[in-house]
Amino acid sequence: MIETTISPVVHVVTPKGFQACGVHAGLKRKRKDLALLVCEQLASAAAVYTTNQFQAAPIQVTKETLHASSGKIRAVLINSGNANACTGPQGLEDAYTMRDKAAEHIGVKPEEVAIASTGVIGQLLPMETLLNGIDLLEPIHEETGAESFAEAILTTDTGTKCTGVEYTEGGATVTIAGVAKGSGMIHPNMATMLGFITTDAVIAPDVLQRALKQSVDASFNSITVDGDSSTNDMVLALASGLTEMDEIIEGTPAYDCFCQALTDVCTDLAKAIARDGEGATKLIEVEVVGAKTDEAARMIAKQVVGSSLVKTAVYGQDANWGRIIAAIGASEQPIDVNHVDIRIGSQHVLMESAPVWFDEALATEEMGQDVVSIQIRLQDGTGQGQAYGCDLTYDYVKINASYRT
Amino acid sequence: MIETTISPVVHVVTPKGFQACGVHAGLKRKRKDLALLVCEQLASAAAVYTTNQFQAAPIQVTKETLHASSGKIRAVLINSGNANACTGPQGLEDAYTMRDKAAEHIGVKPEEVAIASTGVIGQLLPMETLLNGIDLLEPIHEETGAESFAEAILTTDTGTKCTGVEYTEGGATVTIAGVAKGSGMIHPNMATMLGFITTDAVIAPDVLQRALKQSVDASFNSITVDGDSSTNDMVLALASGLTEMDEIIEGTPAYDCFCQALTDVCTDLAKAIARDGEGATKLIEVEVVGAKTDEAARMIAKQVVGSSLVKTAVYGQDANWGRIIAAIGASEQPIDVNHVDIRIGSQHVLMESAPVWFDEALATEEMGQDVVSIQIRLQDGTGQGQAYGCDLTYDYVKINASYRT
Repeated sequence: MIETTISPVVHVVTPKGFQACGVHAGLKRKRKDLALLVCEQLASAAAVYTTNQFQAAPIQVTKETLHASSGKIRAVLINSGNANACTGPQGLEDAYTMRDKAAEHIGVKPEEVAIASTGVIGQLLPMETLLNGIDLLEPIHEETGAESFAEAILTTDTGTKCTGVEYTEGGATVTIAGVAKGSGMIHPNMATMLGFITTDAVIAPDVLQRALKQSVDASFNSITVDGDSSTNDMVLALASGLTEMDEIIEGTPAYDCFCQALTDVCTDLAKAIARDGEGATKLIEVEVVGAKTDEAARMIAKQVVGSSLVKTAVYGQDANWGRIIAAIGASEQPIDVNHVDIRIGSQHVLMESAPVWFDEALATEEMGQDVVSIQIRLQDGTGQGQAYGCDLTYDYVKINASYRT
Repeated sequence: MIETTISPVVHVVTPKGFQACGVHAGLKRKRKDLALLVCEQLASAAAVYTTNQFQAAPIQVTKETLHASSGKIRAVLINSGNANACTGPQGLEDAYTMRDKAAEHIGVKPEEVAIASTGVIGQLLPMETLLNGIDLLEPIHEETGAESFAEAILTTDTGTKCTGVEYTEGGATVTIAGVAKGSGMIHPNMATMLGFITTDAVIAPDVLQRALKQSVDASFNSITVDGDSSTNDMVLALASGLTEMDEIIEGTPAYDCFCQALTDVCTDLAKAIARDGEGATKLIEVEVVGAKTDEAARMIAKQVVGSSLVKTAVYGQDANWGRIIAAIGASEQPIDVNHVDIRIGSQHVLMESAPVWFDEALATEEMGQDVVSIQIRLQDGTGQGQAYGCDLTYDYVKINASYRT
C-alpha cells in the first residue's frame, strides 16, 4: 500500500476537470445557500444514501437520475436551508424542477444532474427564489469556487469541511478531494450529512460504487452525534477520468491504493463532522479491539460514543469508566464480560473487568484536550473497529431547543 | 375487568404483613442511603432484571437467592450511593456479606433476603460503614417507615416515587403498593432503576413472576431517559398472601384483575421516573397506533421518545414534527411511509405524511405544559403501544457532566 497524506492544498476543484461555486439565493437569510459542482465531461458517479425510511425528494430524484444515466453525470446542485423532505408529490415535482433548471443552466441533459438538499424538514421549497438563484451560479476552476461551494452547503455547521489527497501509484498521479457538511443528527447511517468527493481517477461507475460503499462504512457510518438519522443524507463521488492512467480495475494494486486514499478522505471528513457536532467541544475516538468481528467491534464502539452519559462525562472531563462499561454491556453484541480492559487517553482504568488505580488528575487533564481517546480491549476474537463522536454540552441543548423557530 | 384507582394513601407497608425503614448509614454524605423491607412471613417473590451484559454483584446474588429459596423470601435490603458493579470477586463477596448480615439482623435465613444497590459503578462498597448501618435498621409498619424507605433508595432523583391501588374482586380486597427510584440512565430495559412492589394477594411465586414480567414490559420497559441501560436495575415484587382470598390462578378473572392493578402500579411508577429524568421539565408520552404489531408500535414510540432532537425540541416548545418523522423513519420497524399522521397535543401536524396547517402558537403553548403528548397513527395494522420519556435540558448536561467527581 502507498502512503497517502491529507493535503491542505487539495480542494474539490483540484482533481482535473471540476468547477464549483456557491451563492446566496435567499433560502437562508444571509448566508450562501446554493451550490453547484460541474465536471467538464461525463464523470463516473457513485452514491450512498440515508437508511432512514423517509427519504427526501432530492434523494429519490438523484437515485433515479444515476440510474437513468447509468452512473455517468455532469453535475450536482445542492441547496441548504430547506431539506425538501416530507413534502409530498409537490416536493418531488419541485426536486425535478430544480434538477432540470440546473441542467438547462449549464447546458446538459436533466438526467446528468444530481441534486441534494439539507435544512428544515416539511416545508415546500421557495421555488421562485431557488430558480432565480440557479441563474446566479457560475462555477469556476479556482479555489474560491471550491470555498464558496463548501460554504453554501452548510446548515448549523460552525465551519467548512474540506480535505484532499494526492498519490502516485504505477506512474500515475491521482487526486481525490472531499467536501462535507453535517453537525446535528449525525448517527451511524449518515444522518443529515452531505459529502461530495471529486477525483480525476479513471474508474467505472460500478467500481467506484463499491469503493465508495466500503469507504463510507469505515468512515461516515462510524460517526454519531445524537443518535438520530436524517431523511436527506448522501455521499456522492464523481470521477472525471482526466488523469493519465489505466482504468482502475478491482483486485489490482491500483484499486487498493484508490480505496485507501478514498477512505482517508472520507475518514478525515467524518472526523471533521463529528468534531463539529452541535455544541461539541471535543472529538471522541473510540477504538475496540479483540471483538468477535470487525462489525461487532464497530457496533460496540458506536454504542459507547453514542451514549449520552459517556458524552456528558467527556464534556465534564470525568474519567467515568462505569458509563463506558454500561454502554458496552448495553450493546447487542454479546461479549465476555469478565475480560474487558478500558483505557481513557493514556490511563488504564479497567483491567480484566476490574477497576485499577489510575491518575485521576492526569486523566482529567487529558480529557480537557481537543481529542479524547477511549480504547476498549475485549478477549472475544480479532475484530476491531472505530467510531467517532463528540461530547454533549449545554450548547447542544441550546442549538436544538431553538433551531426551527 | 375492574376499575382500579391509584390511591395516594396506599404505600409500601399498606398491604398486610409489611414493614419498612430507611436510614443514613454513611455511603452518601448526608442523605439516607440504606433501606430495608420486611414481610412478617415468607412472601412469594418475583423479579425482573437489567438486560445489560454487565450485571452488578447484587443482581447476581438476588438471582441466586430467589432460586435457592424457590421464590419464598422475607426481606430485601437496598443501599444507594454505591452500585457494587464492576467490582470483581470482592464485590460479589461483599454482596453476600451484606445479604447475610441483613438476614442475621432480622433473624431469618440468608437465602430469604434479596439485595439491591444503586449508585456509582466500579468502587468497592465501604463494608464497615454498610454493616454498621444495617444495625441501625428498624423496620416499622407505619407510613413514616415507608417514607424513609422511599427516600433511602434515591440517587439523583428529585423526589420519592410511591403509588398504590386497592381493589375488590370476588369479595376479596387486594392492596398493591409500589416504590421506585430512577432518573438518569433510564432506557427501555430498566436502566438504573429500582422498583419494589408489595401486595397482600395470595399468589404463587411463578404466577407472580409471569404477572410481573407482563406488567414491567408494558410500563418500566417503555420509559427512556437517555438511551443507556444500567448494570443494577431490578423490579422485585413481594406477595405476603395475608389478605382473605382464594389463591390467584392464571386464566381466571382474579388473575386478570391482579395483572391489571399491577400494571397500573408499575405504569404510575414508570411515568414518575420518566418525569423525573435528570434535568427534565416535562413528561413526554408517545402513543403509536396502526402499527404492524404491538411490539412494533412500542419500538417506534421508544425511538421517538428517545430521540435527542425530539427531546430538545420539546424542551424548546417547538412543534418540530420533522424530527418526529426522522425518528420514526430511523426505527428498524418497517412502515408505510406514505400514510403517517402525527398529532402533537391537540394539533394535527402531519396527515398522510404531508404537513398540514396548524396553530403554532397554540402548539407552543401546549408544549409548555407538564405533559406533552405525541400521537402517531400508521396504516400498517392494529398494533398499538406507548412510551414515556422526558425532555433534554441544560440541567441534564449539568447533572451528568459532574455526577461522579
